[in-house]
Amino acid sequence: MQIREPIQIEQAVKLVMEHRFQGQKEKLSLVESDERRLAEPIIATNDVPSFDKSPYDGFAFIAKDTEHADGDNPITFEIIEHIGAGVLPDKRIESGQATRIMTGAKIPDGADCVAMLEDCQTFEENGKTYMTIAQQMKKDQNIIETGSEVKEGDVLVEEGALINPGVKAVMATFGYSDVWVAKKPVVGILATGTELLEVDEPLEPGKIRNSNAYMVASQVKRAGGEYIYFGKLADEFEPSLEMIQKALEQVDFLITTGGVSVGDFDLLPDIYKKLRAHVLFNKIAMRPGSVTTVATLDNKLLFGLSGNPSACYVGFELFVRPMIQYNIFNKKPYHIRTKAKMTMDFLKANPFTRFVRTYTTYGKNGDLMVHLAGKDKSNVVSSLAHSTSLMVLPGGTEGYKTGDLVDVLLLNEPEGQEIF
Amino acid sequence: MQIREPIQIEQAVKLVMEHRFQGQKEKLSLVESDERRLAEPIIATNDVPSFDKSPYDGFAFIAKDTEHADGDNPITFEIIEHIGAGVLPDKRIESGQATRIMTGAKIPDGADCVAMLEDCQTFEENGKTYMTIAQQMKKDQNIIETGSEVKEGDVLVEEGALINPGVKAVMATFGYSDVWVAKKPVVGILATGTELLEVDEPLEPGKIRNSNAYMVASQVKRAGGEYIYFGKLADEFEPSLEMIQKALEQVDFLITTGGVSVGDFDLLPDIYKKLRAHVLFNKIAMRPGSVTTVATLDNKLLFGLSGNPSACYVGFELFVRPMIQYNIFNKKPYHIRTKAKMTMDFLKANPFTRFVRTYTTYGKNGDLMVHLAGKDKSNVVSSLAHSTSLMVLPGGTEGYKTGDLVDVLLLNEPEGQEIF
Repeated sequence: MQIREPIQIEQAVKLVMEHRFQGQKEKLSLVESDERRLAEPIIATNDVPSFDKSPYDGFAFIAKDTEHADGDNPITFEIIEHIGAGVLPDKRIESGQATRIMTGAKIPDGADCVAMLEDCQTFEENGKTYMTIAQQMKKDQNIIETGSEVKEGDVLVEEGALINPGVKAVMATFGYSDVWVAKKPVVGILATGTELLEVDEPLEPGKIRNSNAYMVASQVKRAGGEYIYFGKLADEFEPSLEMIQKALEQVDFLITTGGVSVGDFDLLPDIYKKLRAHVLFNKIAMRPGSVTTVATLDNKLLFGLSGNPSACYVGFELFVRPMIQYNIFNKKPYHIRTKAKMTMDFLKANPFTRFVRTYTTYGKNGDLMVHLAGKDKSNVVSSLAHSTSLMVLPGGTEGYKTGDLVDVLLLNEPEGQEIF
Repeated sequence: MQIREPIQIEQAVKLVMEHRFQGQKEKLSLVESDERRLAEPIIATNDVPSFDKSPYDGFAFIAKDTEHADGDNPITFEIIEHIGAGVLPDKRIESGQATRIMTGAKIPDGADCVAMLEDCQTFEENGKTYMTIAQQMKKDQNIIETGSEVKEGDVLVEEGALINPGVKAVMATFGYSDVWVAKKPVVGILATGTELLEVDEPLEPGKIRNSNAYMVASQVKRAGGEYIYFGKLADEFEPSLEMIQKALEQVDFLITTGGVSVGDFDLLPDIYKKLRAHVLFNKIAMRPGSVTTVATLDNKLLFGLSGNPSACYVGFELFVRPMIQYNIFNKKPYHIRTKAKMTMDFLKANPFTRFVRTYTTYGKNGDLMVHLAGKDKSNVVSSLAHSTSLMVLPGGTEGYKTGDLVDVLLLNEPEGQEIF
């Protein structure tokens, strides 16, 4: 039987991330690019606005004309033109003249202010239209100047940013009808264990349904990758080896679930050896997930996650997710780790760093509160459904009490952080 | 010109949400169901575990056999069977006998405890294999009992929950190879404005590219809907009316961007009138987005969002998003609204409730901190790209200072809240 030296979790993450690599780029149309990460920055292709424009519906004229205006002395302008947004002004404004202008429209030459529609009154006389205003206007008042928002060449959104509705607005504004995004890395998934039934098979004594493969596939997607499920490994050496070799040809990362315990039916250690994979570690001082194994082979990573659903889940979020996030150009590949106030007691001692399935809420002052997502038996699948965070209780600590501040990893948060 | 009475934002949200309705269900395969919302609860179809099982690799035997065991007095058992996970035990354990058992395997009849592999030593003698243990074991020690985690019939995940990796694990465990999820409502999008160029057209003086349609389409997807973009409305009445009537036949909700100002080129008020749509409100005491108009026609909602990108963005998140979220069975359809600490001064007075584009981070103790996403000019598109929250400054307040606690709406948070 193999002897295993557990390493510290920080060390394990570091060892894995030493093998990080950035993936390929691909060009997508703007409409297909939601929730992908930018492989190139978005740069302003023109000034914004690209002309002096009006923020309001109203009238453009020369501000100086109103220098003596007040309630008793309204100033009258002849309206020489009506311009809608998108229509260019034809006529140059001279003193005593005004142009009716729409929100977003270009300021006519000569004009240097815009009065809001509700501050003006209009009338007709002898076939001409006029406007009066009873207040003083200042030069440049209500004029949005060319380039006042954005200068051509400005970096507007950084490489690696997640494409959200606001990023799409920026891309559309600057004519990015297509965009370079990070290509999704391909993650292979293999389940091990003769006790596993497929999801549509009836339950049999001694067997359980294969939930890890579906869970991990969903984690891969959430992390920004795409997956190939290769099915279940046999419990025999040769066909398993062959299956893993074939899978490795098609993927950037390979995840196996189960088969990493110290038990005699666990094939993976032997397969790693035969493949001449370099095992980075095969035991970590953490719960759950202590038997997580990570190995490298050529430029590929093999993640041997535990067959226990919670351990598998935690192992993925700690080791696989940051690799995928780095691969898709995120410069902050790790889950945000912050403090939260405990809303319950957790009195178990923690000989090893413990990751507890939890969810967070916001307290009265916006302070993060952490709640147990369910019973903390490592085999309880159902609490994973309600987990939006992992509470991190450091190894060597005694229990924690309501009100204590503890670390949490935020699983739903699309933004990450630079260090683990 | 139309006279408009601004209503309060809370009242506006309430008026819209009085017209909420739940959408249809559809059945999806488990693998396709990520990020959708459950239209039916997930119920346990069996006890978990469905048999007494072992949490460890080790040996199963009768605990009472070890009552006199200690370091000086190891107890020896004959190993009568080896069982892997998924393999059923054949033999009943009697006193003095043990079964080699794998993690997750069924406990053999007769046995009432499992000793961990590392606590036992094995040897062979006369062709038989034996195991010795030098410590006392208790009845039921290291046995996970049938139904101890989940009882058949338990509601495991509630209707309306978002399908995340943990929910998928639960569904797979209980044999849900397909699942009823909320059907995505169809949201029509129409842009208005002759000043709009399509994204792939070169910039012309007086014109801007149509960014709102792409932004809103992305907001629809983020909110859980699917969209149809019907293109740009003409600036003439009859073809516009026809286009809107056609669009209404194909959608659950219809969004128009622009065309809702008080200006003379704005067609929508007349179109609403001709359609006999019931206008819920056409002015709101808020910035940006004061000219947001919402109307109902038969069972459909028409959202007339501002043509200004920020106002359009805010109007969507306040009014359209909760309608979509309710439609897809989320019982907490509103954005989470919590407190955050200001990291900057914001000294402008707020005559009306103001929504400021911001992002949040976590402070040293897990308290939410709010930062400006960019300049707060209402036309600055680029800051929308960095917004993950909207800071809410109530109407009638003076400026705010660094360290003040203010309300924020969290835009990235998939969980919501029950009240606005």
